[in-house]
Amino acid sequence: MSDPAASDEFVSRFLSPSGRERAQRVVRELSEWLGSRLSVNETVREQHGHGEASLRTYSPDAVVWPETTEEVSRIVKTCAAHEVPVIAFGAGTSLEGHVSAPYGGICLDLSRMNQVLQVREADADCVVQPGVTREQLNNYLRDTGLFFPVDPGANASIGGMASTRASGTTTIRYGAMTRNVLALQVVLADGRVVRVGTRAAKSSTGYDLVRLFIGAEGTLGIITEITLRLYGIPETMSAATCVFPDLPGAVDTVVEIIQSGVSVARMEFVDEYQLRASNKYSQLSMPEQPTLFLEFHGTSDALAPQIEQAEAIARSHGGAAFQWATEQSERARLWKARHSAYFAARAFRPGADCLIADVCVPISQLAEAVAAARRDVDAAGLLALIVGHVGDGNFHVMFLLDPAVPDERRRADEVYDAMIDRALHVGGTCTGEHGIGIGKRAKLVQEYGSEVIDLMRSIKTAWDPAGIMNPGKIFVPR
Amino acid sequence: MSDPAASDEFVSRFLSPSGRERAQRVVRELSEWLGSRLSVNETVREQHGHGEASLRTYSPDAVVWPETTEEVSRIVKTCAAHEVPVIAFGAGTSLEGHVSAPYGGICLDLSRMNQVLQVREADADCVVQPGVTREQLNNYLRDTGLFFPVDPGANASIGGMASTRASGTTTIRYGAMTRNVLALQVVLADGRVVRVGTRAAKSSTGYDLVRLFIGAEGTLGIITEITLRLYGIPETMSAATCVFPDLPGAVDTVVEIIQSGVSVARMEFVDEYQLRASNKYSQLSMPEQPTLFLEFHGTSDALAPQIEQAEAIARSHGGAAFQWATEQSERARLWKARHSAYFAARAFRPGADCLIADVCVPISQLAEAVAAARRDVDAAGLLALIVGHVGDGNFHVMFLLDPAVPDERRRADEVYDAMIDRALHVGGTCTGEHGIGIGKRAKLVQEYGSEVIDLMRSIKTAWDPAGIMNPGKIFVPR
Repeated sequence: MSDPAASDEFVSRFLSPSGRERAQRVVRELSEWLGSRLSVNETVREQHGHGEASLRTYSPDAVVWPETTEEVSRIVKTCAAHEVPVIAFGAGTSLEGHVSAPYGGICLDLSRMNQVLQVREADADCVVQPGVTREQLNNYLRDTGLFFPVDPGANASIGGMASTRASGTTTIRYGAMTRNVLALQVVLADGRVVRVGTRAAKSSTGYDLVRLFIGAEGTLGIITEITLRLYGIPETMSAATCVFPDLPGAVDTVVEIIQSGVSVARMEFVDEYQLRASNKYSQLSMPEQPTLFLEFHGTSDALAPQIEQAEAIARSHGGAAFQWATEQSERARLWKARHSAYFAARAFRPGADCLIADVCVPISQLAEAVAAARRDVDAAGLLALIVGHVGDGNFHVMFLLDPAVPDERRRADEVYDAMIDRALHVGGTCTGEHGIGIGKRAKLVQEYGSEVIDLMRSIKTAWDPAGIMNPGKIFVPR
Repeated sequence: MSDPAASDEFVSRFLSPSGRERAQRVVRELSEWLGSRLSVNETVREQHGHGEASLRTYSPDAVVWPETTEEVSRIVKTCAAHEVPVIAFGAGTSLEGHVSAPYGGICLDLSRMNQVLQVREADADCVVQPGVTREQLNNYLRDTGLFFPVDPGANASIGGMASTRASGTTTIRYGAMTRNVLALQVVLADGRVVRVGTRAAKSSTGYDLVRLFIGAEGTLGIITEITLRLYGIPETMSAATCVFPDLPGAVDTVVEIIQSGVSVARMEFVDEYQLRASNKYSQLSMPEQPTLFLEFHGTSDALAPQIEQAEAIARSHGGAAFQWATEQSERARLWKARHSAYFAARAFRPGADCLIADVCVPISQLAEAVAAARRDVDAAGLLALIVGHVGDGNFHVMFLLDPAVPDERRRADEVYDAMIDRALHVGGTCTGEHGIGIGKRAKLVQEYGSEVIDLMRSIKTAWDPAGIMNPGKIFVPR
């Protein structure tokens, strides 16, 4: 159950016989208090130590289900008193091992903290507990005429999305979590509860601690309340698709649409392999060619000229079969291949392991980055589908790997390493939206160098000297 | 030359005879190397210790003009070796004493580091040195079809704008510096040079150190290179003005425009007193009533319906005399009263001291916040003009104070204190965009509580144990 890269001292602090004994003491103490809201069931612990990562599972010693900030605080205080790790768990949809427990400890499943606490329509903001999921929030908001736009695909929890700095299909228009979190309530490593941020649209009040907690992956504290920026549901939403003979035409279209000032709400790329999978999965008959999926939000008067302009740009780059729709069911039909991409991919090779790669590059480098990934996938004899939030320069390669052929995973890792090498070489990043977790710690060092990682580590050490908050994530503990 | 609030130990570190002697040694050492690029001239030092703050001036021991990152690094290393303070100076337009030197030390005037190092048109980004000013950058970019939108009013330096988390008139459309800085090169307190951020549009790589340096006011490092996000110059820009019988009508218009999804690029409020000043200063004949100044960016096809919708919303809230213009000189004429507001205010009471208040509140609270400020100003028998970036809930009261009547300043401070009390009470912030500096340290504690300030302080201590980077700013040193 150990993290091979950490220092002996750190490993021993939690995994030595005395560390294990302290953890068991905390389990007993919490169990007396929480009763059935604590589980040591092996299946439950494994599921909570895994998420959706294609990485090794490290189970926590116990899973607890707190229901209030005060309970989270008390649990963390108990763990702090005995130097036992604390891991927050939202919807378990993370892909890089954020929820795993390589040093054991207590997993706080926040799914019962799922109340929308307040919606202020006049200010277009709301306050939610961390276990509220994205879809739950938007269902709740429906009657207000407001919505929360950040859409990472999975029905993730808002707390998890904040902690991993999630983004997704609408980032080009509405921004990532970075832009849409106004304030946070956080339980610190010693159990104290603090609030950072305000409800004002902007603020210049010293260090931006809101942005520091966003993306900290639970290593600096546990988020227990989130104040979010909301948006008016657009009067009109129009969806469009356009097929290209090749990748560069699609990407050049994206670049020119951005430069032209046409306001797109979503701009997604799906490659010919993914379309084949989607056609099969959803009984569609879309051309199996590189395809852009666009969505426009606004007033109907304003949208029509923008869609026309986007179509003209697409045509000038070889785009064809431009289709668009405004009515809800027609939009859903047009976008079906994109919305069902993940499930179509899984179904395309039943029983396969799925490794989802995530890099983000400057937009001028996107066509070559995607093309090179495709060349490497093919050269390695692997099956992989490519989708991308191309307006942000962000794309994913979904490798479908035969678990009976371990060499497939080794080859996929090589292809992925090369993708990251190339992304960093052109000024991009090793992760656009999936985060570091355990899986990408070495890549983070590659991207920034050890001096910058030491700056991060020194914040962690100052705020959590015993290292109990989600240990082993983002950087290797010392 | 002392900061009365700091701990004796901290004051003594820099201001004791031995501290003063170390500073003089550094001045001699740097002088031998930099020659005429170091000044101990009293006027020069005073000007650099002042900025545009209405606060006491604290002069540095010397001002130096580095020309490269390597020189900045060497200067900081020299200061670090002798525990002497380091203060970065951009254009000197800050309002809260960010550039003052209460502990003496070396002021690095970065105005010679004013090169635009790279513009990448396809990616709509650029790399600039910190001394590049906003207007210089936009002049440089003109032929590329790109522009940098953040506009705090003053022709500030980009380094200063990043360090104070500046925003301004276009924030509602393009965001503040928070959103528009992609990457930074920073010289740390020990002189090491690090890079944080990438050129990718987004990234989930652990702690968001870019956002941590933005707004850190030079207390964590000196920014020596900034990678900025640029935008295509809109095909069409239209300006509009609209006059209201009262403040609530104007503010309700703002709220409804935002909620309607009409995309405004600027949305500014100017009160009847400011219009009187502007009419006089610029020989205009605008109605001296609460007025909204709007600007729309986009394609001409898309703009017309949006402007019509904005006008309809304004009319429904009592707005009248709606005027709009697209041609450059007409736009300039329409917006003249807003663009010249600061100079008109200064000229309205020649010789007056100008205290510029800055608070930001949730938009639903804006009408009452502005009205209450006006009531207090009038009750205190003071002269003050009000302008606001109302789309963000941010407004400024410009107090024009007779320096011969010290009680005016006392009364203005009381009115300002009450403004901040009310802003915090309704979930707002004590500064929307001017920062903390020296002037608002107590307000920051009022806003967040001492526990959160201690979290900030612990980052500072971890990264700058001797406390040499712009000491005394954001929080009182210990």
